[in-house]
Amino acid sequence: MDKLVKIGFLGCGNVGGGVWKLLNGFADDIAHRTGLRFEIKKVLVRSLNKQREIDFPDGVLTDCVDDVLNDPEISIVLEFLGGEKPAHQWIQMALERGKTVVTANKVAFALHWPELHKAAQDSGAGLYYEAAVCGAIPIIHTLEQSLQANRISYIYGIVNGTTNYILTRMSREGAEYSDVLADAQKLGLAEPDPSSDVEGFDAAYKLSILASLAFHGRVPFENVYVEGITKVQAEDIRCGQELGYTLKLLAIAKRDGLSVETRVHPTFIKNEHPLASVSDAFNAVFLRGHACGEMMFMGRGAGDLPTASAIVSDLLRAAAAEKHSYPTFENVVNPSVPLQKNTDWQTAFYVRMLAVDKPGVLASVAQTFSLYGVSIAVMQQKGDQTDGRVTLVFITHQASEQAMTHALKSINSDLVSVESVLRVEN
Amino acid sequence: MDKLVKIGFLGCGNVGGGVWKLLNGFADDIAHRTGLRFEIKKVLVRSLNKQREIDFPDGVLTDCVDDVLNDPEISIVLEFLGGEKPAHQWIQMALERGKTVVTANKVAFALHWPELHKAAQDSGAGLYYEAAVCGAIPIIHTLEQSLQANRISYIYGIVNGTTNYILTRMSREGAEYSDVLADAQKLGLAEPDPSSDVEGFDAAYKLSILASLAFHGRVPFENVYVEGITKVQAEDIRCGQELGYTLKLLAIAKRDGLSVETRVHPTFIKNEHPLASVSDAFNAVFLRGHACGEMMFMGRGAGDLPTASAIVSDLLRAAAAEKHSYPTFENVVNPSVPLQKNTDWQTAFYVRMLAVDKPGVLASVAQTFSLYGVSIAVMQQKGDQTDGRVTLVFITHQASEQAMTHALKSINSDLVSVESVLRVEN
Repeated sequence: MDKLVKIGFLGCGNVGGGVWKLLNGFADDIAHRTGLRFEIKKVLVRSLNKQREIDFPDGVLTDCVDDVLNDPEISIVLEFLGGEKPAHQWIQMALERGKTVVTANKVAFALHWPELHKAAQDSGAGLYYEAAVCGAIPIIHTLEQSLQANRISYIYGIVNGTTNYILTRMSREGAEYSDVLADAQKLGLAEPDPSSDVEGFDAAYKLSILASLAFHGRVPFENVYVEGITKVQAEDIRCGQELGYTLKLLAIAKRDGLSVETRVHPTFIKNEHPLASVSDAFNAVFLRGHACGEMMFMGRGAGDLPTASAIVSDLLRAAAAEKHSYPTFENVVNPSVPLQKNTDWQTAFYVRMLAVDKPGVLASVAQTFSLYGVSIAVMQQKGDQTDGRVTLVFITHQASEQAMTHALKSINSDLVSVESVLRVEN
Repeated sequence: MDKLVKIGFLGCGNVGGGVWKLLNGFADDIAHRTGLRFEIKKVLVRSLNKQREIDFPDGVLTDCVDDVLNDPEISIVLEFLGGEKPAHQWIQMALERGKTVVTANKVAFALHWPELHKAAQDSGAGLYYEAAVCGAIPIIHTLEQSLQANRISYIYGIVNGTTNYILTRMSREGAEYSDVLADAQKLGLAEPDPSSDVEGFDAAYKLSILASLAFHGRVPFENVYVEGITKVQAEDIRCGQELGYTLKLLAIAKRDGLSVETRVHPTFIKNEHPLASVSDAFNAVFLRGHACGEMMFMGRGAGDLPTASAIVSDLLRAAAAEKHSYPTFENVVNPSVPLQKNTDWQTAFYVRMLAVDKPGVLASVAQTFSLYGVSIAVMQQKGDQTDGRVTLVFITHQASEQAMTHALKSINSDLVSVESVLRVEN
C-alpha cells in the first residue's frame, strides 16, 4: 500500500552517508507517517573500490553518472557532490529529464539558479535546496512558505559555522586568528584550504539565496560585498568587548523599496542581541518582516546528520507533492523595475587608530570625521602609550560607507595611523 | 487566470483585523506569487452595529453563524473567536461540512484535537493551526514537515508572552510580581483576568500541541503538570542571578523511549543558554532532534499582525493544497503501546530556606537531602541574619521530583523553613 519511490545519489560522502542512515533507520516511521518507501537504487561514487562504512547492496554503487541520470525508474536525484563542477551540469541534466533534484549545493545554486529554475519549470520537476543554507535550519522553507505574507526588510545571518567557531574562540580566549584557525584545522572544523569559509564566499553564496527568496527578486552572488575574517585582530575583539559588543561574521541583506544592499563582513553587534549568543559552529538567521516582526532561527549549519535532516525533509516533501511549486521573483515579471543594488549603505563603524600623543590630534581626527558627515557616538583613549602613540577607539553613528571611506583617506597619516575599521549594526 | 477562493471569518477582533489588512494589502503580491485571490465573503460578528476600524463592504458582516457555515461557496473558514465555546463546535461543524479550517485557537485544539482531527479526515477538509502556538513562529509546520526525519528528545518553550514579559521586568528591575502584573495590565500586556497566562494554563495548552507533534503521539492537556508564576518572588530571581541563572516560565516536554514528561513551571536556566536572552513578550522554542541537533526558533508569540502572518501562510497553504495532510500518531496505529506519562521526572532544584543560625543546622539539612538521594551542587549562606535566621540557597544535582518532595517534607521545620523551591534545567 505504501508508495515506492526510487531515488539516486550523486556522490556519497558524509552527508550522503547521513541520508542513507536516516532513510534506513527511519524507513518504518516514514512509511507510517507518509505512506512513502524509498529505494536507493543507484549511488554514484568516484571509486568503486574504496572502503566504505556503509555496506551498499550489490549493484547500487556505480562510477558512471548515466546510471543515475538515464535510469527512468529513478524519479528523484539527491546531489551531494558540492561545488560548481560537475555538479551543476548534472543537476541541470537531471532536471531536464524530469527528475526532481534535492541538493545541498549552495555554489551551483547561487551561481546557476536561473538556469536550474528554468529547467525545473520547463520539465515540471521539483528543485529542493533546504540543505543549501544553514543545514538543519528550515530557513528556505520558512521564507518560501511561512513568511509569504510579509515584506521582509532585513536579514542578519550567521551562516558559516567555521568562521563563527573561530570568532567565538578568539573572543573567549583572546587568541589571534591564525592560532585558532590552525587549531580548527587540526580538529577538522576548518578545511585544509579554508579560503571559501574565512574569506566570506561561502556566506555570500548563502546570502544571495536568502536575499533572493526574502525580497522576491534575484540577488546575484556578484552583488554581495564580501570581506572575510582573515584580518580580524584579537585586540579589536577585546576593544569591542569593553564597549559591550561581540564580533560576528554577519551576512546582511536589507531592502528599502527597490534598493537592496547585501554584504558579508565582520560586524560588531551588541552583546544583548540574540545573535551575540549564537556561538561555536551554530548558524542563525535573524530577520524582520512587516507582519511577523523580528524572528530568529538557530541551529546546526553543517555536519552529516543535521544536513541530512534537511535533505530528508525535502525528499519527503518532493515525493509527496502532487505538483512542485517554484518561487516567483517580482523582477521576472516586471523586468522594467528590477531590484537595484545599493553599495553606499548606511552603517555605524568601529575604528581603532594609533595617534601621536600631542595636543590637537584628537581634534583633527574629530574634525575630519565631521567634515564628511560622520558623527561620533563613543570615543575611548587608551591609557597605555606605544612608541609615543596612543590608541584611540571610535564608534560612529550611522554614516554612509562612502563618506567613511573618504573621511579615513583624509585623516592626516603623519599624526594618525588607522589600524582597523569594522562595521557595527545596532 | 487567478483562482478565486471564497473564505469566511468566525469573529473579527484584533487578529481577524490583521488578517483582513494583510489579505487586502498583499492581494496583488499573493496573486502574483501563488495564483490565488481571496474574497472574504462573510464575517461573523457579535454585533452588527459596533463601530469598526475596518470598513467592511455591505453584506459581509453577519451575526448569524449559519451564514458562514452553510454557505456552499465558502471553502475555507478562518476562526478568530478563541476559547473553547462556541468556537470548538463551530470548527467541528465547518469541518464536517468539508470546509477547511484555519485557526489560532489553542484551547479548542488542545481540548478537542481528536474529534477535530477525525472530522477533518472524514470529510477530507484541511485543519491548519500554525497560529495556535507561538504566533508568527512556524513551529507547527517545522515539527510536522521539516523535522520529520528526527527523533525529538526534548522541547523547551517560552510560549507565553505575558509571563515572559513579567519575568523579564522582574529580573531587570528587581520588582515584585504583583507590581509588574499591575503595570502590564495597565499597558494592555496582561488581561484583566490574567489567570490563564500567569497560572500557566495557556502554556500548557500549547505544550500539549507541541509535544503531540514532536513525539508523534497524543499528549493530552491533562497530562501536563502546571505551575504558574504567581508565587515567584523577586528575592529568588535575585539569588538565581547571583548564581548565573535566569528565571523563565518554561514549557518542557521530554521523551525517553515511550515515557513522556510534560510540565510547565518557573525554571532557572543558565544565563548562557540561548533561551535566557529571549526577553519581553517574545516566544521561543528550543529543541533537540537526533539528526538536526539543537535548534531554536524565536519570534513574536502574539499580536494582531504576527498572528495574522501565521494565519495567512496557513491560508495560502490550505488554498494551494491539492489534498490536505494530517499528522499521524504512533499510538493511533499501535494502541497497545501508547506513550506513557512520567510524573517522576529528573530535574535539578533551587531551594531557598531560612534556618536557625546555630551549629548543626546546615549539616542536618544536608543529611536529609542525602538520605533521599538528593545531592547538592551549590550552597550559599547569606551573611545577613533576620530574626535569628540566615538564608541558605541550594542548587541540587539532578534528582527525582518525588525524592525532592519527600526530602523537603522531612526537613526539621523547627530549625528550617523552606521559602521557595524552583526547578533548574541545565
